[in-house]
Amino acid sequence: MSEHPSINPERLWNRLASMAEIGATPAGGCNRQALTDEDAAGRELFTGWCRQAGCEIRLDAIGNIFARRPGRNPSAAPVMTGSHLDTQPTGGKYDGIYGVLAGLEVIESLNDHQLETEHPIEVVVWTNEEGSRFDTAMMGSAVWSGAMPLEAAYALKDLEDASVLSELERTGQLGDSHPRESVHAAFELHIEQGPILENEKLDIGVVTGVQHMCRYRIRIRGQETHAGPSPMPLRRDPMMAATRILTRLYALADEHAPGARVTIGYIHAEPGSPNTVPGEVVFTADLRHPDADSYRAMLEACEEAVTSSCDLLNLDGEAHRIWEAPGVSFDEQCIAAVRKAVQQRDYPAMEMVSGAGHDACNIAAVAPISMIFIPCEGGLSHNEAEAILPGQAAAGANILLDAILECALAEPG
Amino acid sequence: MSEHPSINPERLWNRLASMAEIGATPAGGCNRQALTDEDAAGRELFTGWCRQAGCEIRLDAIGNIFARRPGRNPSAAPVMTGSHLDTQPTGGKYDGIYGVLAGLEVIESLNDHQLETEHPIEVVVWTNEEGSRFDTAMMGSAVWSGAMPLEAAYALKDLEDASVLSELERTGQLGDSHPRESVHAAFELHIEQGPILENEKLDIGVVTGVQHMCRYRIRIRGQETHAGPSPMPLRRDPMMAATRILTRLYALADEHAPGARVTIGYIHAEPGSPNTVPGEVVFTADLRHPDADSYRAMLEACEEAVTSSCDLLNLDGEAHRIWEAPGVSFDEQCIAAVRKAVQQRDYPAMEMVSGAGHDACNIAAVAPISMIFIPCEGGLSHNEAEAILPGQAAAGANILLDAILECALAEPG
Repeated sequence: MSEHPSINPERLWNRLASMAEIGATPAGGCNRQALTDEDAAGRELFTGWCRQAGCEIRLDAIGNIFARRPGRNPSAAPVMTGSHLDTQPTGGKYDGIYGVLAGLEVIESLNDHQLETEHPIEVVVWTNEEGSRFDTAMMGSAVWSGAMPLEAAYALKDLEDASVLSELERTGQLGDSHPRESVHAAFELHIEQGPILENEKLDIGVVTGVQHMCRYRIRIRGQETHAGPSPMPLRRDPMMAATRILTRLYALADEHAPGARVTIGYIHAEPGSPNTVPGEVVFTADLRHPDADSYRAMLEACEEAVTSSCDLLNLDGEAHRIWEAPGVSFDEQCIAAVRKAVQQRDYPAMEMVSGAGHDACNIAAVAPISMIFIPCEGGLSHNEAEAILPGQAAAGANILLDAILECALAEPG
Repeated sequence: MSEHPSINPERLWNRLASMAEIGATPAGGCNRQALTDEDAAGRELFTGWCRQAGCEIRLDAIGNIFARRPGRNPSAAPVMTGSHLDTQPTGGKYDGIYGVLAGLEVIESLNDHQLETEHPIEVVVWTNEEGSRFDTAMMGSAVWSGAMPLEAAYALKDLEDASVLSELERTGQLGDSHPRESVHAAFELHIEQGPILENEKLDIGVVTGVQHMCRYRIRIRGQETHAGPSPMPLRRDPMMAATRILTRLYALADEHAPGARVTIGYIHAEPGSPNTVPGEVVFTADLRHPDADSYRAMLEACEEAVTSSCDLLNLDGEAHRIWEAPGVSFDEQCIAAVRKAVQQRDYPAMEMVSGAGHDACNIAAVAPISMIFIPCEGGLSHNEAEAILPGQAAAGANILLDAILECALAEPG
């Protein structure tokens, strides 16, 4: 046995391909939405592999799967890894799935190398991460971490009025309720879902946290009037204010570069007639930043821009926060374990923050965790064309293996 | 008889009120859309008054009504005035109607004062000015002036598939075809449909022309992507380009003040999801200016802004002219006649251009014409709340009387 055991790239790649056959779409993606028959079939394929690998399987009350490889010390807290197997309706083959199957691959590799660990190693499949069928993303990890009451999750319904509880029962995914165990360390390996690593020609992202995120709905009211006769100074045109606010928002992205993200995804002018000055303009502003101070400064500047632009133009305006997710700073020791693995393997890598939310955000509230990213083609995700390179898939799994070993080999502290 | 005969304000006001009873709406406006039973009833009320006033009535092949008070010289070309009696579905009591009934009031006043003119005086009701039921505004004057073929106007259909021709026949408004007579001079008196006169506390607008107008549909294509992970420099965000273009367009309004009008009435981002950078943004830009050079400069700057913003941000964009109406400069002698009347009556007045199109735009192509405006409350028009003051209604009709007399008294040139 070498000092650096490595994972088996073919086994991992073949299992990704086998899993992708369940719910496969004609366009080459996957449709395995949470608690459908396809999701259940994917879970059974996974738990079958886990049993073959000698794992103990446990389902909790919200259907999260815990597959455990025992450690030498039965009282030691587990080192946890995992992600999700459910997909968007027109999802890809790797978002979530890669992290779950790489976790299993770590266990298989330890078996191959007959390597025992002090701590148990647990691969988790979190239920309904996507939130597309039942409208709460990261549901399973939210219930596990205590962020969402179990009964609230049970009561969520899909468009055909089927509840999470009834679908857990129907698909055989309903397990037992029991108190949350403490976790020694945790890692979530995931595709980046963005273009940074590919653009920088790097194989690994050492993820130090998740951006702070806020979504505004900004509504500005003025006076509807004819496009021709009204002189500009007499108009109360909400689109003029919107233009000023948009300009300020994109300027904020420059002022707080490179971490800032500013997205205007929706805009509507009422009544929407080409020759009528609109009476109302509504748009959304999605603002993100990894640094708490910069994030707060952006929010303040956004709200100030709405107020000052409306005051200047004699309009009524409001910026309403419709959604907000505080940023997460991952555990320093977990980050250090990933960083050390990258250095030892000499993989091209960078430290980065996640622009999207993951199950790791919920877990971070109750356990030490960090994330590892690998590139995905063109940054494309939530898309049937989602693609990764086999070499980078193997690299990510090797970093996961090393990071887990770094934490699991040691005596419990 | 004084040197300055004046109109009878009560008669004019009462006739406006009588006309408003036909197609009256509960909210205090009028619904007399072109060639409906209500429109026909309004026309009959008008022609009845005209016959009582000694006018000869003639209908042309598109239903325009010509009510003529003969002059001393049977071979002299008429001095023409008029506007329209049809309304928007939720229209007001004055848009168009005021100009028609003030024209009749001029004839009544000349009768009262037993004042003969050299030239005949003709009050015209143009068919379907509003273009709301049959989708071509200023239809009757367009056919009369030769801008629109008669058969094309006949073929226009409403939403219930009734044609202009069949509705002309059904309502008894179909007259005979005959060659267009030459016109000695013409005036259209109208409510301003904008806030300028009211804002300046003036009674009369001496209208010297109509703005040049162009409407663009601007489409910018980029790359749809997730709002979180994509760094700003890697985005191809069409909303960023739209923000630059909108800023430039509103700056154009300042650079070409006070004549410039810039209206962004419609905007849409596709797919319109708050946490997705849009793949495409489409918006309209309505640009107007009374001065041809300034107008052309604005159009060039608009198109340049689209090109340069898209080039800068690596986007595909196009500015498509979906509608364009060249400006109109009214006849200098007609303008002079109105100006002289204003000076003699000492009414507070200003020279201005019309921001909207009128039948006068069509007539200007084939006859000397200018327009006279009076204020309307809050600049509101195409609205059931449309309102004017009796004193200003009388003032406008007096100016029309004087201007008509200025042209009609003289020997034919």
